[in-house]
Amino acid sequence: MTLLAVAASLLLAATVLGEESAGDRKVDHSIIPAELANAAVLLRERALIDNISVDIVESLTTEVGPRRMGTEGDRRVIAWSQAKFEELGFDRVWIEEVDLDRGWVRGDATAEIVSPYPHDIVLTALGYSVGTDGDLVGELVEFKSFAELEAVPEGDSLEGKIAFVSYSVNDFVPEAGVSRMAAYSEGTKARGRGHVTAAKRGAAAIVIRSVGTDNNRYAHTGSGYGYAEGVRRIPAAAVSPPDAVLMQNMLKRGGPVTMKMNLTSEITGPTQGANIIGEITGRQGSDHYLVLGAHVDSWDEGTGALDDGAGVASMMAAAALIGQMEQRPRRSIRVLLFAGEEIGFYGVNAYKEKHLDDLHEHLLGAEVDSGGGRVHTLISGVGEESLPIVREMAKLVAPLGIVWSDANDARGSSDMSVLGRAGMPALNFMQNSNDYMKYHHTPNDTFDKIIPEDMRYLTAAYATMFYLAAEMDIDFRK
Amino acid sequence: MTLLAVAASLLLAATVLGEESAGDRKVDHSIIPAELANAAVLLRERALIDNISVDIVESLTTEVGPRRMGTEGDRRVIAWSQAKFEELGFDRVWIEEVDLDRGWVRGDATAEIVSPYPHDIVLTALGYSVGTDGDLVGELVEFKSFAELEAVPEGDSLEGKIAFVSYSVNDFVPEAGVSRMAAYSEGTKARGRGHVTAAKRGAAAIVIRSVGTDNNRYAHTGSGYGYAEGVRRIPAAAVSPPDAVLMQNMLKRGGPVTMKMNLTSEITGPTQGANIIGEITGRQGSDHYLVLGAHVDSWDEGTGALDDGAGVASMMAAAALIGQMEQRPRRSIRVLLFAGEEIGFYGVNAYKEKHLDDLHEHLLGAEVDSGGGRVHTLISGVGEESLPIVREMAKLVAPLGIVWSDANDARGSSDMSVLGRAGMPALNFMQNSNDYMKYHHTPNDTFDKIIPEDMRYLTAAYATMFYLAAEMDIDFRK
Repeated sequence: MTLLAVAASLLLAATVLGEESAGDRKVDHSIIPAELANAAVLLRERALIDNISVDIVESLTTEVGPRRMGTEGDRRVIAWSQAKFEELGFDRVWIEEVDLDRGWVRGDATAEIVSPYPHDIVLTALGYSVGTDGDLVGELVEFKSFAELEAVPEGDSLEGKIAFVSYSVNDFVPEAGVSRMAAYSEGTKARGRGHVTAAKRGAAAIVIRSVGTDNNRYAHTGSGYGYAEGVRRIPAAAVSPPDAVLMQNMLKRGGPVTMKMNLTSEITGPTQGANIIGEITGRQGSDHYLVLGAHVDSWDEGTGALDDGAGVASMMAAAALIGQMEQRPRRSIRVLLFAGEEIGFYGVNAYKEKHLDDLHEHLLGAEVDSGGGRVHTLISGVGEESLPIVREMAKLVAPLGIVWSDANDARGSSDMSVLGRAGMPALNFMQNSNDYMKYHHTPNDTFDKIIPEDMRYLTAAYATMFYLAAEMDIDFRK
Repeated sequence: MTLLAVAASLLLAATVLGEESAGDRKVDHSIIPAELANAAVLLRERALIDNISVDIVESLTTEVGPRRMGTEGDRRVIAWSQAKFEELGFDRVWIEEVDLDRGWVRGDATAEIVSPYPHDIVLTALGYSVGTDGDLVGELVEFKSFAELEAVPEGDSLEGKIAFVSYSVNDFVPEAGVSRMAAYSEGTKARGRGHVTAAKRGAAAIVIRSVGTDNNRYAHTGSGYGYAEGVRRIPAAAVSPPDAVLMQNMLKRGGPVTMKMNLTSEITGPTQGANIIGEITGRQGSDHYLVLGAHVDSWDEGTGALDDGAGVASMMAAAALIGQMEQRPRRSIRVLLFAGEEIGFYGVNAYKEKHLDDLHEHLLGAEVDSGGGRVHTLISGVGEESLPIVREMAKLVAPLGIVWSDANDARGSSDMSVLGRAGMPALNFMQNSNDYMKYHHTPNDTFDKIIPEDMRYLTAAYATMFYLAAEMDIDFRK
């Protein structure tokens, strides 16, 4: 026990030394005035002990729940968002309608292995898949990756077959320097385009192993990007990771494996949703503003706690905490809750269209769409003149465990990347998204997965940086 | 990095020292002859590199899957077990029929919160629950524990209500010296008796939070012990942990929470199953034998990989490995695969009844019914004379990380406890059951949860101890 205690204390010492070696954190007060820096520190520390972000995501997941764009839950969340902004003391609250060209009914999804061994299979329709029009029975043909499926020449070699892409995010071995997100991106290829690729080779349907890191018997939904003109519309579904393993174990025995699947999904007509916007109006008026984004829609299997309830809650909370300060910040802060991110960035695209002429009024933007985990790295995407200032601002969030990256290539994440690519300066707050990758897009994305302490750290990071940005009268484009 | 490396090496050193301090492991060869000890070591090491137990559980979960007693899966597993015993080279294989006084159809289970906030709720019928006979709508009344429900006086105060026992295994704070299993046992009170207790207070139905340590959106099934004479038969179901949290969050707002549930479960007539027995016949004949137990049935939501596929596989594998040695052991080893453990120990009770007259021929027994984790502690339940011998045998499994306990109060676990209480000497192999508590009784109990290295360690422990026991010509009752 003594040796263990010694070892533990050495580990602790090493951690502390590691922190110290991260560089000088003393703020240069010729860039950030001492009074402002002090106010930012007090705001940051208050955010760490205020449970407001957790309360908001609890409210959203309990009182609204699933909210895919175009559904009843979507209509509920629009009303909820407006009421919540009012309750939190925002100065202006409004909605901007967003057209949705096509609705979708998920329906039921059932499947079973008919032979060689009867088993029920857990699967779910991928977003905007057509149904199977009754039972669809076919032999499985396994492809270890999307590339393997693509390598099959176009034609009818898969006629009557069900293509099965068994790629697992966990099997991915990234090359040096490649982010683990690449493993997820690899998986989304078959999820987003597999139904078109398989149809071009004659397949009757496609099933993929769920794109997630967990081992739970849930299928992960996703996609929603639709069919290609002139290509047969075949049903597309994801099977749970354990069911994918089961199917692979049957297939490796060498004989034919026959699956029966039944999806009652249905693509329906146009409908409407809305972006919801809340503003803490700056003391210099409303004509220039910083924007905090999140998407208000969710997939329909869980209650969207991590994806993207955590984003909605942390952005609302960060702005509300700034709004609770003694005076309004110099610049306005707008929280933009976007419609239809999951099914193809409907909300942000409509927003960009509508706001093309005032995009220059967007001084700086950022979005949370990676769950409720803590931020580990901050990357800016600002002009050369602004960079040293933002670097100085970042010192005030370093005590939250946030490392500054000088890459300065941020374009905003998720929805915000649309505005970032259109020229808006952006900050990317890179989060620990391990839990997110396990739970999002599944029935398991529920409130109990929120870690309150992490949500407070997340909120504190945004509140601090955006308060500073709102007070510093600089043009982040320069 | 240097400090970290030093700390890491100290931790390693501490671990090694810890092992050394576990006591002298040199075997006394006046008790266990050197030749026998050597053979046991070679068997143990072979078991650690042989994948046979993993292959068996893969075969069971892939080729059979769910196998609740009285279902089609049960009929399939009886055939599978006989074929597998033959394939593994057992000398004798037979079945002993077991009567089941009542069958049960699980049917579908759906539920939703009707107000104040509409939500779908994931739940599952507890074993042998009656159905709801259409939609059952009632207001939820929460009880934090089974004791709280019991404290309500009998009568009609819960009339028209749905009793909701929200006790969580994770909330349990054991007193010093109390095993964590106590948290699970506390949960099984409401699961096993809640429907009777709630009915005596007028409730229309009972739902409980699932009894498990995970946070997945699955309901855990279980129970099956039936209704009490003269008490109204009300439906009983378990809701998933995330849904329980959601319901509690609604309830804490203070207003009424109304739930609608629909179970199509149905209790049906008598049917039959079987215990399946395989024997490695000893070179001194078949009239005295050691018994390795597991239950062949499973709940019907997963494929029963951990509960109790891991038991079936490790017991079959341990005996098969002994059967592959140069000569048969002195005493026979029988693997007993029991029917209907989950629904009330049907198989072992029938076995005891049938074998009352030859219970004295059972020299020693043990059962795996805690998943595929490694054994950490070995406890005997043998006569005074045998204790020093078993303690010496245990030295030969100590290198597997198994600590010997001198308590000598083992009565056999799960089914084997029935024979243990009837006087059969027993060994209890205490396993790491963390994964088991997360996955068992849910759709998540699937093959991918098996950790091959752990299964090999588990198998090696049983093979080594039972080989030694079969060779040592002693009466463990003495």
